[in-house]
Amino acid sequence: MELWCTEKQTENLSLSFRLKETLRREKTAYQDLAVVDTLPYGRMLLLDGCVMTSEADEFVYHEMITHVPLFTHPCPRRALVIGGGDGGAIREILKHPSVEEAVLVEIDARVIEASKQFLPAISSALADPRCRVVVEDGIKHVKTARGRYDVIISDSTDPIGPAVGLFTEEFYRNVREALTEDGVFAAQTESPFLHARLIADVQRRIGAAFPITRLYLAAIPTYPSGLWSFTLGSKRHDPLQPRPCELETRYYTSALHRGAFQLPRFVEALAVAGEANGRPVGEAEAPRGGSGG
Amino acid sequence: MELWCTEKQTENLSLSFRLKETLRREKTAYQDLAVVDTLPYGRMLLLDGCVMTSEADEFVYHEMITHVPLFTHPCPRRALVIGGGDGGAIREILKHPSVEEAVLVEIDARVIEASKQFLPAISSALADPRCRVVVEDGIKHVKTARGRYDVIISDSTDPIGPAVGLFTEEFYRNVREALTEDGVFAAQTESPFLHARLIADVQRRIGAAFPITRLYLAAIPTYPSGLWSFTLGSKRHDPLQPRPCELETRYYTSALHRGAFQLPRFVEALAVAGEANGRPVGEAEAPRGGSGG
Repeated sequence: MELWCTEKQTENLSLSFRLKETLRREKTAYQDLAVVDTLPYGRMLLLDGCVMTSEADEFVYHEMITHVPLFTHPCPRRALVIGGGDGGAIREILKHPSVEEAVLVEIDARVIEASKQFLPAISSALADPRCRVVVEDGIKHVKTARGRYDVIISDSTDPIGPAVGLFTEEFYRNVREALTEDGVFAAQTESPFLHARLIADVQRRIGAAFPITRLYLAAIPTYPSGLWSFTLGSKRHDPLQPRPCELETRYYTSALHRGAFQLPRFVEALAVAGEANGRPVGEAEAPRGGSGG
Repeated sequence: MELWCTEKQTENLSLSFRLKETLRREKTAYQDLAVVDTLPYGRMLLLDGCVMTSEADEFVYHEMITHVPLFTHPCPRRALVIGGGDGGAIREILKHPSVEEAVLVEIDARVIEASKQFLPAISSALADPRCRVVVEDGIKHVKTARGRYDVIISDSTDPIGPAVGLFTEEFYRNVREALTEDGVFAAQTESPFLHARLIADVQRRIGAAFPITRLYLAAIPTYPSGLWSFTLGSKRHDPLQPRPCELETRYYTSALHRGAFQLPRFVEALAVAGEANGRPVGEAEAPRGGSGG
């Protein structure tokens, strides 16, 4: 007998993992949540059928969404993660000795619960005394925080359902206001091969809120196309001049930090804030499922 | 009705493309050859069930396997491609105005034939007067060429079947001898996420033949894990100091050339020639099918 878990990444493209067993399957108030154990990539969290994280490759995503903004800032003390209920981004943030407080604002308490139970290596830092977990809508949270955070990270699901609001110009303006005067923002912004138009739009919107806006890339095998983009918005500090990294990492290095901003030519075009003529290399845009942070 | 084409990338991992139609399916003297038309990535060539190239993302592979060695060399005049019967590497090589002769040595004439018929945008340069096509075993060809080529490219299938010989120390020594005294070699060397042990072995073997050996990476959505490695062996010229690029490209830029050598930390360990303790991030090593160039 063979069991397989298939993510339909678009209408016309799917990635399948051989399965040991399903560990949890439930409808939460926000989404369809599943934790499965796979042979190729270990345990995996899926929301609305989309892979959010896997034990084997989570280090790439979590190191790159955190260390790039945190090493761009000269001395980050307070950090906010919107979404990211698995706790992986918090774990990486708390490796920085300067960080005094890391706040997780996740809309779906069941995601946190499932991660604590089934993904302890990813979620363990949620128990750290420097971490504060708030079950709340991240959009609402940033509206009420003024000048509070040195770093804000949007560790959202794909831009459909509740997460749509995490990709708007209004949200990015509120993020800017929630940051200190030299704060840094980073967001996951989908695949350049499959979501080029979205990336071009987001570049323009973040570019309207931040004087420095830059796209960077990382290789994530369990995500559609395997190539993922992040967008960094900075009020003052140049992301191409990171502080040296003294942490133990598996993906991030200072040289790689700079290399991740050296974009393929077809991605460079999207990364020019305001240039919204992106077209996907593969098929037409088709965002995956999943709900907001 | 839905038609799907599935590549079993490993025993436990598969990638599926929705299919319009199959254009060719035959058993050649060397392998199972298929050309299919897919919705997400256009037409695709598969050998022994493994995706070799697709219309949508071939530009990444072909630009990166050619322009990195060709811009490392100060003035490449003669270039050799081993394998690569689709013609994509030849097309990119012939964009360099200094190149007087580009030789393709492909073991399977049916691959060339199928590419000419169904993948004209990839294979068109095979008709260029500067291109010479030789249907022969590449291993044999490099044994008889002495000091002949400025650049040699191993555009092979995966290291099983006839292609095994393209991953040996003996082959790399013969490649060195077939190069001019400041020649440059590049080879496709599989995925760091899935074939870490192979990469470590190849680094050691190429490192034994060339004074300068370096790994670089590119994002290729239709290949297993989406992240692919190439290994460059150079007799004299530093691959981190490429000549400026004046060509029209879709992936390659001079800055990206340098960025592609900035490796994730887990790949850096493999890239140290001689360090053969690589272990895959995903499941155990399991080379795909496919036969030699």
